[in-house]
Amino acid sequence: MSSGTGETDVRPAKQPLGSWRDYGEPELPVPLAAALEAFAEQGYHGTSVREIAARANLSVPGLYHHYPSKQSLLQGLLERTMTDLLARSEAAIREAGPEPVKQFDAVVESLLRFHMYRREQAFVGSTEIRSLDDDYRPKYIGHRDRQQRMVDEIVFAGVEAGDFTTPYPKDAARAVATMCVGVSTWFKLDGLLGPDELIQRNLQLARALVGYRPR
Amino acid sequence: MSSGTGETDVRPAKQPLGSWRDYGEPELPVPLAAALEAFAEQGYHGTSVREIAARANLSVPGLYHHYPSKQSLLQGLLERTMTDLLARSEAAIREAGPEPVKQFDAVVESLLRFHMYRREQAFVGSTEIRSLDDDYRPKYIGHRDRQQRMVDEIVFAGVEAGDFTTPYPKDAARAVATMCVGVSTWFKLDGLLGPDELIQRNLQLARALVGYRPR
Repeated sequence: MSSGTGETDVRPAKQPLGSWRDYGEPELPVPLAAALEAFAEQGYHGTSVREIAARANLSVPGLYHHYPSKQSLLQGLLERTMTDLLARSEAAIREAGPEPVKQFDAVVESLLRFHMYRREQAFVGSTEIRSLDDDYRPKYIGHRDRQQRMVDEIVFAGVEAGDFTTPYPKDAARAVATMCVGVSTWFKLDGLLGPDELIQRNLQLARALVGYRPR
Repeated sequence: MSSGTGETDVRPAKQPLGSWRDYGEPELPVPLAAALEAFAEQGYHGTSVREIAARANLSVPGLYHHYPSKQSLLQGLLERTMTDLLARSEAAIREAGPEPVKQFDAVVESLLRFHMYRREQAFVGSTEIRSLDDDYRPKYIGHRDRQQRMVDEIVFAGVEAGDFTTPYPKDAARAVATMCVGVSTWFKLDGLLGPDELIQRNLQLARALVGYRPR
């Protein structure tokens, strides 16, 4: 927010990621963090720009200086969410090397972590597609399709290589993604089982979905 | 709406169900159908009672006569949704007889069908828990827990009987429910695969999650 122009705030996050496994507090510009809170509590249509400005400790004109509309806040937020998710998934897959089973474990773990540590962003992302303007919605859906395609392609490769035995690779890949995304609806950081234990269990379940057969 | 009192409209649906597999148009009282549409499009906080009245072709006082507040519309809608879901699941399990595998297939099929044919209700149910008043929220969450417990108990019984081999019955049962609920986010009635084919595939995937072993 120190640059005095809106430019720096609407770009997708580009800072070096560290590991795809590392999650600190989400590094959102103040207006987007305020919009996230408000949208998660009241939904997009139930939130006014005035409320977002108040949560961000900005005047309405001050907020508009960076984000010219409520819609630009939603788009900025969802774009960052998807850019972060995709960058982490890609890094995880890259790090895993060429074997489909390792790539599968990596992308599943990455999806699980993201939906454990970015629950609010995942919630707003999945509930407010309805509220996106037509000019941006296709781009957002393109991001989502790209994430699903990463999973699909790894499952297809695993079937091809004889590691996965499911007769329905595409349905299995969708079920895997659904299971990982669903974690955001029930996971609690202070729950009985820590993230690592839950990741281990859900990895096993994901492997069961694709009919993993050890060689 | 013909009785002239609100009483008939706020009760959960009690008409005989026919089969748990039968889905016609949802039989919602006009105000609840209007509220469902509006909440699905704009969210609870983004919707005014005036808008719901307009969609229902009622005056605002006319709407208030049956539902004294926007909150009562949300509660009436979610209560019917859960009552319908639970009644169908229970009927499916009853019809399946005592064997865990048959009960499992039945409850999975019932969950899948519901989330294919009642997508909007499922969406509002999952997104607007945040908007429920504190006096009703525990009841709603109790309904959801009861649905999850039905799946849990069948999976435990299947493990006990040696039909299911998963080392994580509770996690597997949650993944099964998550997968079934998730169908509402992507299923299209006019999609390439009909509901029956998708149910068959997802039943197989659900069985994989619990480590089904044919005897």
